[in-house]
Amino acid sequence: MRNINRQIVLKQRPQGMPQASDFEMIEQPIPEPGEGEVVTKLMWLSIDPYMRGRISAAKSYARGVEPGEVMVGGGVGQVARSRHPNYRPGDLVESFSMGWQDYAKLPAMGLRKLDPAAHPPELALGLLGMPGLTAYFALLDIGQPKPGETVLVSAASGAVGQVVGQIAKIKGCRAVALAGSDDKLAWCRELGFDAAINYKTAGDLSAAIAAECPQVDIYFDNVGGAVHDAAMSRIGVGARIIICGVIDTYNRMEQPDIGPRHLRRMLVNRATMKGFLITDHIARFPQALAELESWRRAGKLKYRQDVTDGLENAPAALARVLSGGNFGKQLIRVAE
Amino acid sequence: MRNINRQIVLKQRPQGMPQASDFEMIEQPIPEPGEGEVVTKLMWLSIDPYMRGRISAAKSYARGVEPGEVMVGGGVGQVARSRHPNYRPGDLVESFSMGWQDYAKLPAMGLRKLDPAAHPPELALGLLGMPGLTAYFALLDIGQPKPGETVLVSAASGAVGQVVGQIAKIKGCRAVALAGSDDKLAWCRELGFDAAINYKTAGDLSAAIAAECPQVDIYFDNVGGAVHDAAMSRIGVGARIIICGVIDTYNRMEQPDIGPRHLRRMLVNRATMKGFLITDHIARFPQALAELESWRRAGKLKYRQDVTDGLENAPAALARVLSGGNFGKQLIRVAE
Repeated sequence: MRNINRQIVLKQRPQGMPQASDFEMIEQPIPEPGEGEVVTKLMWLSIDPYMRGRISAAKSYARGVEPGEVMVGGGVGQVARSRHPNYRPGDLVESFSMGWQDYAKLPAMGLRKLDPAAHPPELALGLLGMPGLTAYFALLDIGQPKPGETVLVSAASGAVGQVVGQIAKIKGCRAVALAGSDDKLAWCRELGFDAAINYKTAGDLSAAIAAECPQVDIYFDNVGGAVHDAAMSRIGVGARIIICGVIDTYNRMEQPDIGPRHLRRMLVNRATMKGFLITDHIARFPQALAELESWRRAGKLKYRQDVTDGLENAPAALARVLSGGNFGKQLIRVAE
Repeated sequence: MRNINRQIVLKQRPQGMPQASDFEMIEQPIPEPGEGEVVTKLMWLSIDPYMRGRISAAKSYARGVEPGEVMVGGGVGQVARSRHPNYRPGDLVESFSMGWQDYAKLPAMGLRKLDPAAHPPELALGLLGMPGLTAYFALLDIGQPKPGETVLVSAASGAVGQVVGQIAKIKGCRAVALAGSDDKLAWCRELGFDAAINYKTAGDLSAAIAAECPQVDIYFDNVGGAVHDAAMSRIGVGARIIICGVIDTYNRMEQPDIGPRHLRRMLVNRATMKGFLITDHIARFPQALAELESWRRAGKLKYRQDVTDGLENAPAALARVLSGGNFGKQLIRVAE
């Protein structure tokens, strides 16, 4: 192989929606693994809303990317060189720390080895990875869905939302989707959602939610903003509200996010709202992945991916994800 | 006794702060008890912020008072007439359904008989009644305070807040008070709060909270509004936010309550917010009252009351409570 490692580095912190010009592609030599490390060749790069937070100046739960540094991201790669006995060239691995680059030097300890016979490897970035695990733990641990309850999901055709809806159905709930295009609504119905609402064209969104939900028992929120407010207007007694993402705010994190306070409604309904981060649940990943995989093999979990080719298109794909332009889990196919 | 029962009825729904002119005192004959009922003579009437919700047109967790009806309220009274074998004239009883009137006809089943030797009877409306029980269950069940954590309390010298702070100290926490006058701050320090902040004069309230709280682990919110927002700006990882009251909004419930959305902060800190209503916890009242009473006898729970004489002053006392003008649990002494 040619000794060139393409890397996309952050050039400057974006103002609002990230632009291609906020990033820069540079070329560096392919790194050499140290003792206990491997160098991987990137095949699939995951594009996720959380990335906007990493390039913002606002405080978050993880260290940000400074201008000049390689952009962070999870991916699936093939081991190119190894200095760890458990990994050999050709092995498929998934890592949260691949970065936007062709070759990554990684400690073997943090890798997940993938069985190419078990499932398409890129599912390790979606249904059988962070988004699927997020849906699993946030819905089951915080939501504690009971048969007959109504689960309302925002960004319902997205990487997390589509799994939430299908697990809600597995648990005997009524699942109602919120999404932003008729194609997405149709897909949600195909997945088994009982109803789907286009939040862009619904007009009075609160009324549209009331028409499909006797009451909102669980609101799985991936977006925040006005959609959140409409959902909150329909919560019932004992409702659980899962704050999993606030895409609506990701491009304006330096400005205050203003809207109705729902405190009185929280009190009257004795509702619970809880923020969720997947990293709190690492110890239980293996058992959750086993259950997700068993549901998938039983045909109970489908998964839609939105694939863009070429590492150089990662910045544009991030902008699409942040504007809801993607349809399903957004991936970049970097190499076959 | 003269056969006159003074009653305060709602004349019209208040616009904003309730006025004396929204109520009217009428005279009716004293009622006769039916089988299984007693008629009580009111001694102490409890004045509480929740009452504002009962005379609002906005939906709440309980049926409202219609114009022409006797205003609702809890109180302590003496049995005047009884048609139930367990109650005799002269017995002291507490009921949530006394109403703003000299004489109430009540089913004996819903009464709590008080032992005049055990404690001053009016404590059954405060420390050893709904406010104390609210502090107890909301702090311990939702808050789950751990030694060394910081508990921030709004309306800290109020009927509920003063008990919250003292239980927080019993549980080994740092307790920080928010109150609206220097007298109230001094009282909170006397109760054992580690620090007290005057939210009216603090200037940058968020900075003032940061100066006294390493991070807010538990925020016990009795008020909502801008004080809520300042507290939310200082929550730490794993914070619990207890929504117990929203006094700030009680006089403007027909208008939207607008402010910062704290969703991203909830997510980053995996915080939990939960609304609280005491009526969910009735089954455990006896054990909670026993523990509160044991702490009181051990000198660990003090309790300040703000006593106004005369049933006719109840409307003005309600306005005081809603504007924070009271200092401690607001009571009306109706008869000795």
